[in-house]
Amino acid sequence: MIIITGLEGIPPVGPGDDLGCLIVEAAGRGEVGLREGDVIVVTSKVVSKAEGRLLSLKEVVPSGFAEEIARATGKDPRHVEAILRESARIVRMRGNVLITETRHGFVCANSGIDRSNIDGGRIALLPVDPDESAKGIRDRIMDLAGVDVAVIVTDTWGRAWRLGQVDFAIGVAGMYPFKDYRGEVDPYGYELSVTEIAVADELAAAAELAKGKLSGVPVVVIRGYEYVRGDGCAGQLVRPIEKDLFR
Amino acid sequence: MIIITGLEGIPPVGPGDDLGCLIVEAAGRGEVGLREGDVIVVTSKVVSKAEGRLLSLKEVVPSGFAEEIARATGKDPRHVEAILRESARIVRMRGNVLITETRHGFVCANSGIDRSNIDGGRIALLPVDPDESAKGIRDRIMDLAGVDVAVIVTDTWGRAWRLGQVDFAIGVAGMYPFKDYRGEVDPYGYELSVTEIAVADELAAAAELAKGKLSGVPVVVIRGYEYVRGDGCAGQLVRPIEKDLFR
Repeated sequence: MIIITGLEGIPPVGPGDDLGCLIVEAAGRGEVGLREGDVIVVTSKVVSKAEGRLLSLKEVVPSGFAEEIARATGKDPRHVEAILRESARIVRMRGNVLITETRHGFVCANSGIDRSNIDGGRIALLPVDPDESAKGIRDRIMDLAGVDVAVIVTDTWGRAWRLGQVDFAIGVAGMYPFKDYRGEVDPYGYELSVTEIAVADELAAAAELAKGKLSGVPVVVIRGYEYVRGDGCAGQLVRPIEKDLFR
Repeated sequence: MIIITGLEGIPPVGPGDDLGCLIVEAAGRGEVGLREGDVIVVTSKVVSKAEGRLLSLKEVVPSGFAEEIARATGKDPRHVEAILRESARIVRMRGNVLITETRHGFVCANSGIDRSNIDGGRIALLPVDPDESAKGIRDRIMDLAGVDVAVIVTDTWGRAWRLGQVDFAIGVAGMYPFKDYRGEVDPYGYELSVTEIAVADELAAAAELAKGKLSGVPVVVIRGYEYVRGDGCAGQLVRPIEKDLFR
């Protein structure tokens, strides 16, 4: 049995805030608590805020290339400039859609830049190193509460071929992001065609169900899922470009 | 709070079996039971078995084109023939990878054909109409147990850009597959950049966590998620080709 609970009581987060501490405090006040083996799923938006990854569009001077892309896509040139600064390549461009590969290797719309839920006309950039962010939160929870948990930082993206968006794992700490079936055979002696399940992405998606976008619950606790402990990271989820038929 | 539980006690499924009845019986024997508003997530493999969507490779005569693709990919020509018969187009081909669009519009490896967990050298084709399969199971549960549930039929696929596979919704009944945020604004007046969350896919992914590939638990009950009731279907999750930059 797996239990997914939104963690109530995280206050509005700002630059410099100690997310690990806020999580431990909120868990201490509520009924959910924190237990060994829990998976703590944290929206990247609050990680970006805590890490000061906010940018005022007023301060952004668009390059000529950004102006060009802005004309083609109908976007704000300063927004495009910010997207390009965060990206390693443009993967697709059509209409008002701009799909980029971020410096982390993630493929998503607008380099994952989001302007909702931030005051003062600012935009939120993805954390510089979300795996490191996840590790920082995990270590802090370990220090403050003495509890060994896994931490997943998530973002909400569209997908190829499918409509609608789902949450993905962009930072992982304390667990291996896959469940590995390689080499295992079914009862009839056939090797399983499924080889590795991206459980970190499934946990991210599951957590979204308990979160919602407007409800102000940026942290979710997943209890009862037996993950493989270890030094995994979300970087392992990025398909190397030479194995990618869609980049 | 969302609770995800594997439904124990589903016997091995074969052609003609009444899945809705097997689910009601297994739920009746166990502690989980079935409640109004539950989401019942069913692996497509058992749906295919119940619907007799099994094919013996011995009976398949490959076309010249299938022989050609088999040479290029190193696959069994009869396997390729079966894949092509289930597909509407080849989306990508490289090395031993063959990604097709199925007749349903799903983009996945090998038209979703799987040879594991089936006896006698047979392969399982995806259900002809997984939305109809989901509706059949839902209606049967309603008839036998008088309980109004949503049903999701799932399959396990790889993704563009990301390593590892996750479960996706290929059949949906009794719920709308999205949570719709279109037009909603955040506390600062910005329109949410997230518009529609593909919750049916998130429920499919969440259920996989309680399932496992070898454990013989093809049905999972998700309790406590408030979905939007209605006549939704997984066909709504298929991105129309004119809005798809990766097909």
